[in-house]
This record gives sequence, structure tokens and C-alpha cells, in this order.
Amino acid sequence: MAVDSGLTSLEVLGIAIQSEIEAAKLYERMEKRVRNIDLKEKLEFLKGEEEKHRSIFEDIHRKRYPDVELKLPEKSMVPMMDVALTKEMTLKELFEVAMKAEKISEEFYTDLARKSKDASGTSMLNYLSGIERGHYNLLKNEYDMVVTFPAYAETEEFLMGERLTHVGP
Amino acid sequence: MAVDSGLTSLEVLGIAIQSEIEAAKLYERMEKRVRNIDLKEKLEFLKGEEEKHRSIFEDIHRKRYPDVELKLPEKSMVPMMDVALTKEMTLKELFEVAMKAEKISEEFYTDLARKSKDASGTSMLNYLSGIERGHYNLLKNEYDMVVTFPAYAETEEFLMGERLTHVGP
Repeated sequence: MAVDSGLTSLEVLGIAIQSEIEAAKLYERMEKRVRNIDLKEKLEFLKGEEEKHRSIFEDIHRKRYPDVELKLPEKSMVPMMDVALTKEMTLKELFEVAMKAEKISEEFYTDLARKSKDASGTSMLNYLSGIERGHYNLLKNEYDMVVTFPAYAETEEFLMGERLTHVGP
Repeated sequence: MAVDSGLTSLEVLGIAIQSEIEAAKLYERMEKRVRNIDLKEKLEFLKGEEEKHRSIFEDIHRKRYPDVELKLPEKSMVPMMDVALTKEMTLKELFEVAMKAEKISEEFYTDLARKSKDASGTSMLNYLSGIERGHYNLLKNEYDMVVTFPAYAETEEFLMGERLTHVGP
């Protein structure tokens, strides 16, 4: 998502913090929905990364606006995020919202990086953008498994080696 | 790496298992070399994933060749892997070997997927390939930070929010 040029820095921080909070919450919901231990671990890992990002932006807020209370935007920048966080959705749908959210975050940080006034800021924002892109790819890869093998998410140990017998000639 | 069509299934399994063992070992070495707690955690996560892959292929071996002892190839398929695992290298060099290893694994699994005789085998091998591609991207993103910010790997808590003050206008 391109960053609206009419936004203040404070608003940009609010958006970033909110989107990291939402992503972490969504991964927590998804983690509760699956039984596959490896997949749970991945969702836990993703959640941890978003929590770190949140704290990066909270640090910036604290440092730059020590006297201004943080205000989060009323609306998510991710379509269906509010539904995903409050209503019933299939696991497949939750993945789709999470993938969309990662895409939007990636573009948001890329755009901030482009607009950054110093080289190290650009590097760090590109780094964050790269992490979100990585999350998207990880989710997409897991999504394909969820869609292809209905048992994948529902089995504590999806023993791939037991099912994958033909390797090589 | 294209899978040599002269290889037996048993040899293919040996190569896969060896490359997963090496990758896990390399991440362990890298993890010991950095002080950044977040980066340590990522390397730990990567190591865990390679250990899971190793056990997938060991399961296949056990199931398909219960009476044949597993033989690992004498030579790594990754250039410089033997050096990286036994000699001194800079962290940057270790990243470069790890990135190369992930690229090779990705191509190896993609090629096996293409040659797989059943659709679910193809899906699972493409999934493994996708994970290795994700590892490459994760490493590349971290590598850029290691190269750009010499303090990044060497600081227990690299406080990005303290350094990244200009976000937005």
C-alpha cells in the first residue's frame, strides 16, 4: 500500500503499530485453529516477529513523541481483517487474510523506505519489508499444503516421510 | 541442482539427508557467531526446520529400505560447505555458503518434485522446495543487514526503533 502523502509521521506510526498488532492477533487465532505442531510453531514464529516489529515502532513513537499519546487508526488497512479477528472463518480464509495483510505491510514499508530521508532508515525499512515478503511466501507455501492435503493442518504430526515414498527413480 | 539421472533412490535419499545435516550444522555454527538475540532466534528456527527435513528423509529411508544401512555421500553438493563447517570463516562468508546451500537444496527438491511419480509427492517436494527458497530469502535479508550495519550481528539488542527515527514525513 502506498503511504498517503497527507499523513503525519504520527499517523504513519499508528498505522504501522496497528497493523503489527493485528497480524500478531491473527496468527494467534490461526495457531489455535490448527493441530499440526510444525505449523503451530511457524505461526508462533510469525507472531513473535510481528510483536518485535510492533515494539520497534513503539520505540520510535516513544522517542520522537514522548509527550503524545499513541492513537491507533479506527479502521484496519487490511480488507476483512476485522472480520478475521472477530468472526468465524475457515482456516483457508484466515490464511487469505493473513497473506493479504503481509502483502500490504510489505508495500507499506517499501514505500516508507523509498520516502526515508536517510540511507540507514531506508535499509532498515527495506529489511522490515523483506521480512513481510518472507512471511507472505511462508504463508503461501503452507496455504498450498492446507489446500492440497486436508489432513495437513488437522494432524498433530503430519508425517511427510510416511506419505512421500517415491523420491528419485 | 538437477538430480543426476544416474542416481539410485537410495543415493538421492543420502544426498538429501546429508544436505539437511550440513545445513543444520552450519546454522548452529552461525548462531554461535552472532550476539544479536533476534538473529540467533532466526538461525535457531532455520536449524530446526532443517532437522525436520532430515527426519522426513530418514523416515522415507527407514520405510523404503528397512534393511539397508544409510550411506551418506563423501562429498557435499555445496561448494565450500566442508570449509564452512570446519575452518574459520567470517560471518559474511558463512552467510554466503548458507545461501548457496539453500539455493542448491531448493533446486534439488524442485527437480525431484518434477520427477515424482505421484501428484501428492510432487506437492510435498514442492513444499520442501518452497521452504528452502524461503530460507534463502530470509538469509539474504539478514545478510543485507549484516553487511550494511556492522553492529547488527554483534549487538545483543540491535534497537532498530532507536536508530530509525525518520518514519513518514
